[in-house]
Amino acid sequence: MKSDELFALLRRRGVLWPSSEIYGGAQGLYDYGPLGAALKRRIELAWSAWFLGLSEDYYLIDPAEILPEAVVRASGHLENFTDPQVTCASCGSAFRADTLLEKVRPEGLDGLSPSQIGELIEQAHARCPRCGASTLSVPRPFNLMFGLDFGAKAGERAYLRPETAQSSYLAFDRMYEVGRKALPLGIAVIGRAYRNEIAPRQLLFRMRAFTQAELQIFFDPAAFSVPFDSVAESTLPVLRAAERLAGRETTTLVRARDLVEAGGLPEFYVYHLAQTVRFFVDVLGVPMGALRLFEKSEQERAFYNRLQFDVEVLLESLGGYKELGAVHYRGDYDLSRHGQGSGKDFSVPTAPGVRVLPHVLELTFGVDRNLWALADLGIRTEGERTVWALRPYLAPVSVGVFPLLKKEHGPFARSLYQRLRDEGVDAEYDAAGAIGRRYARMDEAGAPFCVTVDGETIAPGTERTGTVTLRHRDTKAQERLGPEDLMARLRAAVRFPRPAV
Amino acid sequence: MKSDELFALLRRRGVLWPSSEIYGGAQGLYDYGPLGAALKRRIELAWSAWFLGLSEDYYLIDPAEILPEAVVRASGHLENFTDPQVTCASCGSAFRADTLLEKVRPEGLDGLSPSQIGELIEQAHARCPRCGASTLSVPRPFNLMFGLDFGAKAGERAYLRPETAQSSYLAFDRMYEVGRKALPLGIAVIGRAYRNEIAPRQLLFRMRAFTQAELQIFFDPAAFSVPFDSVAESTLPVLRAAERLAGRETTTLVRARDLVEAGGLPEFYVYHLAQTVRFFVDVLGVPMGALRLFEKSEQERAFYNRLQFDVEVLLESLGGYKELGAVHYRGDYDLSRHGQGSGKDFSVPTAPGVRVLPHVLELTFGVDRNLWALADLGIRTEGERTVWALRPYLAPVSVGVFPLLKKEHGPFARSLYQRLRDEGVDAEYDAAGAIGRRYARMDEAGAPFCVTVDGETIAPGTERTGTVTLRHRDTKAQERLGPEDLMARLRAAVRFPRPAV
Repeated sequence: MKSDELFALLRRRGVLWPSSEIYGGAQGLYDYGPLGAALKRRIELAWSAWFLGLSEDYYLIDPAEILPEAVVRASGHLENFTDPQVTCASCGSAFRADTLLEKVRPEGLDGLSPSQIGELIEQAHARCPRCGASTLSVPRPFNLMFGLDFGAKAGERAYLRPETAQSSYLAFDRMYEVGRKALPLGIAVIGRAYRNEIAPRQLLFRMRAFTQAELQIFFDPAAFSVPFDSVAESTLPVLRAAERLAGRETTTLVRARDLVEAGGLPEFYVYHLAQTVRFFVDVLGVPMGALRLFEKSEQERAFYNRLQFDVEVLLESLGGYKELGAVHYRGDYDLSRHGQGSGKDFSVPTAPGVRVLPHVLELTFGVDRNLWALADLGIRTEGERTVWALRPYLAPVSVGVFPLLKKEHGPFARSLYQRLRDEGVDAEYDAAGAIGRRYARMDEAGAPFCVTVDGETIAPGTERTGTVTLRHRDTKAQERLGPEDLMARLRAAVRFPRPAV
Repeated sequence: MKSDELFALLRRRGVLWPSSEIYGGAQGLYDYGPLGAALKRRIELAWSAWFLGLSEDYYLIDPAEILPEAVVRASGHLENFTDPQVTCASCGSAFRADTLLEKVRPEGLDGLSPSQIGELIEQAHARCPRCGASTLSVPRPFNLMFGLDFGAKAGERAYLRPETAQSSYLAFDRMYEVGRKALPLGIAVIGRAYRNEIAPRQLLFRMRAFTQAELQIFFDPAAFSVPFDSVAESTLPVLRAAERLAGRETTTLVRARDLVEAGGLPEFYVYHLAQTVRFFVDVLGVPMGALRLFEKSEQERAFYNRLQFDVEVLLESLGGYKELGAVHYRGDYDLSRHGQGSGKDFSVPTAPGVRVLPHVLELTFGVDRNLWALADLGIRTEGERTVWALRPYLAPVSVGVFPLLKKEHGPFARSLYQRLRDEGVDAEYDAAGAIGRRYARMDEAGAPFCVTVDGETIAPGTERTGTVTLRHRDTKAQERLGPEDLMARLRAAVRFPRPAV
């Protein structure tokens, strides 16, 4: 499905829509409706169950999204978190330089100086995409953070965090005290980050407010031991930077062990790459063939990253591979910068007389982007029928509960529905219209199961509890089973997978 | 416990701490650590289970927190969402006028004009609380919204939402289409709201970024039918505005039925008051004796509110009753304003030829404040022992799992722990230190149960599954039971209560 077509479907079904829609929308902001909000929450829960399940020393915290200026000065965002921006003197529009140069330089502008970019614009005879005038300015750095006046006195500035990661770095000191005072220590945040994108586009892929799930693992580089054997034989779909720069653009399936032994990557890094791939494939259900670990070269990655593999997934709606997550080895950059900025020493004792400034391994995950990816990969239409194939624990509705006949079977169906809700199963009751129409509504909402209460359930005139029909979304297969079996089946199906560690 | 003492305890235990603490903190912002984040999430889940459980037509959505200027102009916040601010010409400090006048006018300044407030300040010979100079300015309205430059072009402004409610009003049109196209329709939002408080104080009670859980119920005032009989005989602790203005400051227990019949309140309103009281008492566990429904008079409430009862709870740490939630009957103010602002007609057909602009009943709930209240009401110290009494489904840790002896009982305890986690029970494993010390840690974290694996569990040398000791936090009572009974017990205990409707 094309991007517009998919978005129209999601909007119609109340999954998401442009924010402040009745006022014409706010560029780069989206609201999630009931199905979208539930799916988003479940993606977050799946992420937590998996990544916090990797270690008992990984914790989820919930920090404020506003950062005082001292924080973003220390982190480098005040100075460096910019995009080159070009304005048109005729119509006043503003553009990102890289979008103007997409045709002549599809690989982007990473690493080029503003004056180099200006030369490229001149050489390309670029014109204003809005009014067509050739009055484009030289590129100027535009800071992508949203700044705000903080407090009642003039002059105090704060910023909406441009990434959730900063909140974890700020919490390291406190968490080290609260925890076991030992490394590794993982601090996860799931929450909003904000970027004043010059040109929001591609729907959930370049938003001005978006949700990240990030785990920052603080570790002693001399002693970060992981259960590597549990992943050693897994194969990972990798595209190494060196291969790519040598013109070989093919993703290869490589054993985790070989990435360490022949590939020169540290065990702790490959271990987390492998657990990330398992999450995408085994938990989210992304086909292995649509996934690749795209290594960024030294030129392409942020200067503080020692290693960076982006998790990319091939999405039909956006016509190519899109970044949905990443694994960054950031060295000691973050604690070193915040140490300088705050005047505090964040080194920790690792042996008598030895102190180490912890390094950071960052696992990032874009919640909105992955929600879109699950729609792109999961929604298929078969004639009139639209089906959203989602793993049962991800589906916004777990089960539809229907009385075959509203009057006869309603009371029994409703009590079953109540019981499911009481037990924490997200059930939806539907007594309206033909049964096929009700199946269709549930299929479109991604509900993996439907339960129908019918003539066989209750012998007329009695109140005896009987069996119900369980219908499976993907196969349309139906089976009959009793209420206890049903409860056990549903409970097991909506359980979030956790890593075996 | 005094406020400072309670905060110190929560900070030490990693429940919460001042945001950006390593940079000296950011006034009015707090970060939740692992226990706080888990407790907060569980409060939100309890709220959702209860209030969304009131009707199948009440939905939870997840909208963006940034509002374009047109929205806050229409809602009235751009013009009216202000506090009178006084600045000191000598030291430059800024103060809220009401805090300067707290002693001479403890009832606050609602309804007074800036010049009336200025006169009061003069009469009181108020001085700058910081430097003592008598150079205070006349009061000026200070807008409490955080504004930001939105987009790359100069001049486009947006605002962090000052209340989550606006997001629901913006969504009404879309949700009416997505839902059954019928009233009542409930739209709930749980998320951050932001206010640039002149003087943040009382910790979680006047924050600059805070979490609200709000349900906006859109209804036809001529036809909002509720199952009133299910609450008619409940007694509610009310303090009516008329009584109060007549000098009678005593909270009285009144039957819901009498509030309608003698008290002149509409059934739909009293029904939701009663369900709110049930939530506070039955779900959160607030003692009925600490709760009151404080009616605001016409002068005290916002002009668009036709009825307003605040839910107030007596908190020792803050020395009085504090507002933790409210029930507002807002009439058709919101859809009428957004209709004018957007040029759209939000009336809906209710009968052939009849269209009605829906009225709004708003149920608000401050998540952070309630978290604080649960700490205030629930934490008690008995000598060395600190216990946090929380309902099992609210506790950040549901069960501590201990091997009595690390080596002998560790493997069994660990497999039990893994099974609990796999089934979604928030278990914590602890093998360190004396068993009494481990109980103490769990008591302080509010864990309702501890499970100990000991000599009776496994006969030495065999792998036979045996019974474990279940210890109850509040009574310290212990009992032995088998693994299946344990699972069933825990599953039932962590289930969120839902209203019987």
